[in-house]
Amino acid sequence: MVTSLYEQLRDHIRNEQPVGLCTVIDGPNVGAKMLILPDRVAQGSFGNAELDRIVARDALAELEAATTGVRHYGPQGQTTPEDLADTVTVSVFVESFSAPPQMWIFGAVDFTAALAKVAKVLGYRVTVCDAREVFATRRRFPMADEVMVSWPGQLFTDRGNTLGPRDAVCILTHDSKFDVPAVLGALATRVGYIGVMGSRKTHERRMQRLAEAGLTAPERIARLMSPIGLDIGARTPEETAISICAEIIARRTGRTTPSLRDGSGAIHS
Amino acid sequence: MVTSLYEQLRDHIRNEQPVGLCTVIDGPNVGAKMLILPDRVAQGSFGNAELDRIVARDALAELEAATTGVRHYGPQGQTTPEDLADTVTVSVFVESFSAPPQMWIFGAVDFTAALAKVAKVLGYRVTVCDAREVFATRRRFPMADEVMVSWPGQLFTDRGNTLGPRDAVCILTHDSKFDVPAVLGALATRVGYIGVMGSRKTHERRMQRLAEAGLTAPERIARLMSPIGLDIGARTPEETAISICAEIIARRTGRTTPSLRDGSGAIHS
Repeated sequence: MVTSLYEQLRDHIRNEQPVGLCTVIDGPNVGAKMLILPDRVAQGSFGNAELDRIVARDALAELEAATTGVRHYGPQGQTTPEDLADTVTVSVFVESFSAPPQMWIFGAVDFTAALAKVAKVLGYRVTVCDAREVFATRRRFPMADEVMVSWPGQLFTDRGNTLGPRDAVCILTHDSKFDVPAVLGALATRVGYIGVMGSRKTHERRMQRLAEAGLTAPERIARLMSPIGLDIGARTPEETAISICAEIIARRTGRTTPSLRDGSGAIHS
Repeated sequence: MVTSLYEQLRDHIRNEQPVGLCTVIDGPNVGAKMLILPDRVAQGSFGNAELDRIVARDALAELEAATTGVRHYGPQGQTTPEDLADTVTVSVFVESFSAPPQMWIFGAVDFTAALAKVAKVLGYRVTVCDAREVFATRRRFPMADEVMVSWPGQLFTDRGNTLGPRDAVCILTHDSKFDVPAVLGALATRVGYIGVMGSRKTHERRMQRLAEAGLTAPERIARLMSPIGLDIGARTPEETAISICAEIIARRTGRTTPSLRDGSGAIHS
């Protein structure tokens, strides 16, 4: 059984396909393993169907974020046992073998550093891109994995095919010379989230420019979260970063939450 | 004018009252200042009423978070000008003279480190508290400002009077021996946010225990956000941290957002 799991693990790693491995490191069944593959039923068991289900669910989420760590469960998979100290605890090492998800942030503006910081906590590989070389510097964004002085069209041409459903494009520029090509570039990819910052007035003007550039199909427009973020009354750059990341999570898990896009009131009270 | 502002600034700092100072550091009116006090109209002007209003709003939010930094605006306070590079930009240095807001996290569990990390980005002074000394260690929570091995009652007795509307208490323990005194301790303070983690089942059991301990008044129960967090389908500790911080922001700004507390469905899909 373990041999078969390791062979599959090896094959997925060799083929650069995301794969997770969960191992009991403390509690009953130490050494028991489960193999986690996206869009497939987990293989292996920790000896309790509910525990298996909960661990597989959590490990799949960790795999999407490409994060690795130890999680603790009750014997039937309780993540919230009544009294963790008094019950048998199963400690599970969750390993993700996967490239991290990507977040591309366009615009080296007041909100960029805070968003990059929160995105790093969530496990993203963060790229900051701006055409203005005095603004797009490593010194201003030490937390980013990559800072690029580039027009968005170029970045999408070079690497747009690396973006997939786990990834996010956040356009914070407010400059139509920059954000129109960024939106059109993002829409040509399979990226899972496209958010565009701006007041409601900026949003209206931008949609006008995008229409002039040929963006009229409702199903393409529906992919844009604009104005970007959940409607939580965010004011500081840090609060705005939380509202954006909360929207990304809610969209990915299919929750119905009040996005700024779907409202009409003032963004700030 | 500037003399009067500085005198007020000095007095507020001496009296340990939160106060903010905004200074134009680039653009028209370099050196112009505005003084920001909570619950009062800002003093001073940057020469445009709308610019003054927006800067005062942003500075007040920065003051709540006790953060300091540079923000950029259009000449009429546009945070999202059509083309920031081409218009006159006003650079404002926003200084907050204030103790940082506090977040007390009870429970050294799988979710604690991620919440502490996100709270640090938002400017909180983070205290992690657990009665179990093998779990509550600085090594496990290097990002916290303080790790305490203590029962919650003791911490609230010693320092509960330092908590106010900007502060947050997050109870992640799931252990009624620990979370019942933590909830009761938090309710005896002026803290602005009290969140309690758990499944819907754990929540029911906990409310039962709290009722037995004398918590029956609806207006006191209404202060509890339990289960903790916005309903965004968070799964990993990092996603859960975002859902908690998004709820704190939304509650503070008075937005109507779908908190887990106000729903009834499964927390995880």
